[in-house]
Amino acid sequence: MYQADERVDYLPGSELKIIQSPHFFNFSLDAVLLARFAYVPIQKGRLVDLCTGTGAVPLLLSERTKGDLTAVDIQEPLVEMAKRSVKLNHLDKRIDVIDADVKSITSRLGHGGFDIVTCNPPYFPVSAQANHNENDHLTIARHEVSCTLDDVTRAAAQLLRAGGKFAMVHRPERLVEILLSMKEMRLEPKRMQFVYPRMGKEANTLLIEGIKNGKPGLVTLPPLYIYEGEEYTREARQQIYGC
Amino acid sequence: MYQADERVDYLPGSELKIIQSPHFFNFSLDAVLLARFAYVPIQKGRLVDLCTGTGAVPLLLSERTKGDLTAVDIQEPLVEMAKRSVKLNHLDKRIDVIDADVKSITSRLGHGGFDIVTCNPPYFPVSAQANHNENDHLTIARHEVSCTLDDVTRAAAQLLRAGGKFAMVHRPERLVEILLSMKEMRLEPKRMQFVYPRMGKEANTLLIEGIKNGKPGLVTLPPLYIYEGEEYTREARQQIYGC
Repeated sequence: MYQADERVDYLPGSELKIIQSPHFFNFSLDAVLLARFAYVPIQKGRLVDLCTGTGAVPLLLSERTKGDLTAVDIQEPLVEMAKRSVKLNHLDKRIDVIDADVKSITSRLGHGGFDIVTCNPPYFPVSAQANHNENDHLTIARHEVSCTLDDVTRAAAQLLRAGGKFAMVHRPERLVEILLSMKEMRLEPKRMQFVYPRMGKEANTLLIEGIKNGKPGLVTLPPLYIYEGEEYTREARQQIYGC
Repeated sequence: MYQADERVDYLPGSELKIIQSPHFFNFSLDAVLLARFAYVPIQKGRLVDLCTGTGAVPLLLSERTKGDLTAVDIQEPLVEMAKRSVKLNHLDKRIDVIDADVKSITSRLGHGGFDIVTCNPPYFPVSAQANHNENDHLTIARHEVSCTLDDVTRAAAQLLRAGGKFAMVHRPERLVEILLSMKEMRLEPKRMQFVYPRMGKEANTLLIEGIKNGKPGLVTLPPLYIYEGEEYTREARQQIYGC
């Protein structure tokens, strides 16, 4: 079931396992934060995670909802890995992993049929050469080479029904672009949380949720600090491990 | 020097006095936070405060800069009060208070001549009837009847030289509009701080600074909590009283 360079990790605060490889982008704390932040319907509904990578977000969401989950990534080897992780957790009937391009995703998944779209997209514009990584897989996961911010928000707006929710994790330095892009696609920003590595530092992660065709009015949630000294804060442990 | 219904208060963390009246909008913590948040040149420069009310912001800024300060308000009785406060503090040569409309301010103050624009504008759209106040002076100070968000950002963009800074205090629920408006007027958002009444609560105040014709890239500063129990937090005391 695994290849030579792969390893199996537990997802934090969960009994779920995830297959990863050092050659690819591994799931990060950001994926965990997104999976805890996103609103999800408990009993039923259709949810889709874009830029899913190894599938950490839909795996974690499967513990919060009984709805149907779809996971999308453009990188075939990651999709394969995510599929095997889904199987490993006996979630084949709950999570459908597909190899597809976000830019043409509605040709696969249709318009307006989803209640929730989540996404942990590439954070860096392609022009930011300094951040580029030689490893192609990592570059695709981190840089907007195959999927830009607008590609994500456009796809989310197309996939969602009116009133459906879009939740994303991103970098706060791109907040202006993010809000502009969401507004343009009619995903009205409604709920936002800044994540700070520790007290006294600038925010380095942004969690944001919008509602398709929603009314204006944005709530800024209490900030989340991750570390206090060398340890997770109580809030971070709560959000990451649920305890 | 004072009228019957007026009183003289000290500005917090300062030897400066300010004349206020219960019939008008009194200076608030927001004005103090703005005056501490805004970047100011220390030795010289031209600064203007829009929607100045009784002049709390320029009075406080006069302690942080040796530059020339102009204070603008559309309400003649408030301008008179601010003028008397300026005199009371022997700052007549440093602070010029003028009775003018932000919408046509460049006819009085010209284009591109200022280094810094600050503003503590009316927070509420006129449509928000529920928040309206019967007192006309209060309505003008709190609601966008004579000055909208776009009026403020447009005036700031016109008054500032390229590279000049615009600092504003507002409500976080209007963040999306604020960023859009600043972008449209080419006041690139660069620095932002959310103010929370206390830990665990949503943010209720937003401090934001933009640079005229600046490059994109927004820093989200550490959050500021105002209260812990019934007292100011150490950071709030530091920011309000400087001790």
